[in-house]
Amino acid sequence: MKRFRITGKSGSCRARTGILSTPHGRVQTPCFMPVATIGTVKTLSSEDLVKMKVQMIISNAYHLYLKPGTGIIEKAGGIHGFMNWKRPVVTDSGGFQIFSLENVKVEEEGVWFRSKLDGSSHFITPEKSVAIQGSIGADIMMAFDYCPRRWDDEPEVKKSVETTLRWAGRCLSFHREHPGKQRLFGIIQGGIYEKLRARCIEEMSQMDFPGFGLGGLSIGEPFEETSSIVDFTVGMLPEDRVRYFMGLGMPLQILGMVEMGIDLFDCGMPTHIARTGSTITWKGKVNIKAGRYKNDFSPLDDECDCFVCRNYSRAYIRHLINTNEILGLRLNSYHNIYFTMRFMEKIRESIKGSTFEKFSKNFKKKYNIGR
Amino acid sequence: MKRFRITGKSGSCRARTGILSTPHGRVQTPCFMPVATIGTVKTLSSEDLVKMKVQMIISNAYHLYLKPGTGIIEKAGGIHGFMNWKRPVVTDSGGFQIFSLENVKVEEEGVWFRSKLDGSSHFITPEKSVAIQGSIGADIMMAFDYCPRRWDDEPEVKKSVETTLRWAGRCLSFHREHPGKQRLFGIIQGGIYEKLRARCIEEMSQMDFPGFGLGGLSIGEPFEETSSIVDFTVGMLPEDRVRYFMGLGMPLQILGMVEMGIDLFDCGMPTHIARTGSTITWKGKVNIKAGRYKNDFSPLDDECDCFVCRNYSRAYIRHLINTNEILGLRLNSYHNIYFTMRFMEKIRESIKGSTFEKFSKNFKKKYNIGR
Repeated sequence: MKRFRITGKSGSCRARTGILSTPHGRVQTPCFMPVATIGTVKTLSSEDLVKMKVQMIISNAYHLYLKPGTGIIEKAGGIHGFMNWKRPVVTDSGGFQIFSLENVKVEEEGVWFRSKLDGSSHFITPEKSVAIQGSIGADIMMAFDYCPRRWDDEPEVKKSVETTLRWAGRCLSFHREHPGKQRLFGIIQGGIYEKLRARCIEEMSQMDFPGFGLGGLSIGEPFEETSSIVDFTVGMLPEDRVRYFMGLGMPLQILGMVEMGIDLFDCGMPTHIARTGSTITWKGKVNIKAGRYKNDFSPLDDECDCFVCRNYSRAYIRHLINTNEILGLRLNSYHNIYFTMRFMEKIRESIKGSTFEKFSKNFKKKYNIGR
Repeated sequence: MKRFRITGKSGSCRARTGILSTPHGRVQTPCFMPVATIGTVKTLSSEDLVKMKVQMIISNAYHLYLKPGTGIIEKAGGIHGFMNWKRPVVTDSGGFQIFSLENVKVEEEGVWFRSKLDGSSHFITPEKSVAIQGSIGADIMMAFDYCPRRWDDEPEVKKSVETTLRWAGRCLSFHREHPGKQRLFGIIQGGIYEKLRARCIEEMSQMDFPGFGLGGLSIGEPFEETSSIVDFTVGMLPEDRVRYFMGLGMPLQILGMVEMGIDLFDCGMPTHIARTGSTITWKGKVNIKAGRYKNDFSPLDDECDCFVCRNYSRAYIRHLINTNEILGLRLNSYHNIYFTMRFMEKIRESIKGSTFEKFSKNFKKKYNIGR
C-alpha cells in the first residue's frame, strides 16, 4: 500500500487532496493537527477530539521525554494508550523546542541542553530522538533537525542546513536498524534563503523520507517572506511526498499554504487564542471578552453546528471567560478546533469538487467582515 | 401535588427518602447538589452533569447579582437558559457570602456591603434578595438570613436569630405578593446553641416554608458539635418539610447527616479538592499527585464506571494535574461528582431496601482503608 496517495488536484493552483496511510489509520489531506504538546490538546479530552472528527494530533518528544518521561508512556502502551487516543499521532522531534532554549551547546554528535523544569542536563542525538519518538509510539516521527533562530545570518543558517542533513541521514539509518511500522519524515531547513532551501531539498529528497516538514518558518518573519520561500520550496519538492508546514494554524494562512500545495499543518494557536478569549468564526476572529457580547445570546458562530454553538451563548461564554472559569476556556477551545476541522473539510471537498478557487475567494471575502 | 413526599424510612435511624417537586421536575432525596456558584459547576458542562445524572444544582444569588448581573440572566431566560441546564436549580440567598465580607453594615432594613470585584457599594434587603433569586429563575430560593460568624458569642448569635426570623417573614410576604411556581425555603440559624436553634425553629416552622436550610454550620466548629446540634435541630423540625444542610459534601459527613434525617446537601468541596489533586474513591480519598501513582495505570477508582475511570489511568491524570493541564482538573472533577452521585444513589436505594444500616457500616469500614 502506498504511504501517500494524491487523490485530487486543483486546476488553478497547487492545492491537492491526498490520503496518508499510518499504522493507526488513514488521514485525509490537507489536514490540520491540533497540538497535544504534553499529551492533551489543551482543555479537551480524547472523546472531544473524536466527536470533532480530529484525524491526527501532534505531540512533542522533547516535552514528553522530560515529563512524564518516556518510560511511563511506554508502559502505558505508548502515547495512544496513555491518552486513550486511537487515531494517528505525529511527534515533533524536539529540535525546535531545544533550539529555543538558552545555553544550548551544539556538537556534531548531538545537542546539550538544560531542562526548563529542573535545570537537569541532557544530551540528545538524532538517534536518541528517533528512539524516544519510537518509544512514544508515534505513527509519524520527525527527524531531529538543527533549527536556526530568526536572527541567524546566512552562514549560520548554512551551517544548520548541513548539520540537519547529516542528522537526517543518521535518523534514517537508526530507523532502518530498528524497523517498525512507524514513518519518519525529514525536516527541510534553510531559513528564508532560496539557495539554502534548495541545497537542503536536493540532498534530502534523495533520502527515503515519505514526507517533509518545512521547518524554521513562521517564527516572526513577515508572512510575504514565508509565502515566497514556501512557494519556492514546494516547487522543488517531489510531488509524491507529504508536505507539512510546521506551526501554522490560522485560517487565512492555512488557505494560502494549501494553495501552494501544503498537505499537513499543526499549530497551538486555535486553542491558545481560545484561552485568551478569541473565537474563530466564518466571519472572522472575534474577541468574545468584549463588552459588546454582554447581552448577545446568539452562538459563538451562527454558522457553526458544534455542541457549543448549539447549546451556549456568547453572553454565557463571555461571562465564563471573564470570571476565569475553566468551562469557558474549554467551550471556546472546542469551538475553535471544531471550526478548524470543518474548515479543512471544506477545503478538501472543494479541491475534489473543483471549486477550491471559488471557496477560497468567498472565504477570504467573508472572513474579513467580522474582524 | 405535594411539594415534598416521604417515600421511605430507615428502621434504625432518622434516614429517609423522599421526592421533592420543583417547577423543573422531581428530585429524589437524599440529594447532593453540585455547586455552580457563578453559573458553572467548575470545569464541567451541563452535558457532563446530565450524563452523571445530577438531579439539581445550586447557584449563588450574591455572585450572579454582581457578575454577570441579573439583567443578563433574565434576558437569557433565567439561569436555566443561561447555563443550558434544564433540571432544578436552587439559589442561595447570598446571606452567607455577604456576612463573610469585611465592613458589612447590618441595619434592620437590610445589609450594606462592598463588592469584592470593584469595591462598589450595595444594599441588599430580604425583599431584594428574593427578587434577585426570582429573576435568576431558581426553582428553590433561600430566605435572606443573618449568618453569624464562627467567633460570634451567644448574645450576638441571638441577635442574628431574631433578625433572621424577621427577615424570613419579610421574604415570605414578598414572595406571596409576587406569586410564581418558585419555592422559598427558610434558613435556621442559632449557631451551636440549642436554645437559640429551638427559638428559631419554633417560630420558623409556623411560617409557610416547604423546607429549611440549616445554616451557620460546618464553618470551622468540630464535627461532633455540628452533629450534636443537627441531631437536636432535626428532632424539632416538622417531619414533612425538607431538611437541607448547607455546605457539606464529603462522604462520611453526608452519611452521618443522612442518618440524622437530612434530605439535601450542597458543597463546593468535591470539585474544589479535585482541582488540587484529591480523588474520592470507594476506598477513601487519595492524593493523585503523589509519586506512588506515577506508574499506576489502573483507573482513579477501580470500582467506578464513570467515563474517566473507563478511559483514563491514574498515571495519566497525575501527569495532567502535575503539569497544570486543565483536562486533568476536569477529569478529576468529573469523577468526584460522579462518585458523589452514585454514593447518594446507593444511600437512597439502601434506605428503600431497608439495608441502609448495613450499607453505612460497610461504607465507613471500606472508606477508611485507602485514606
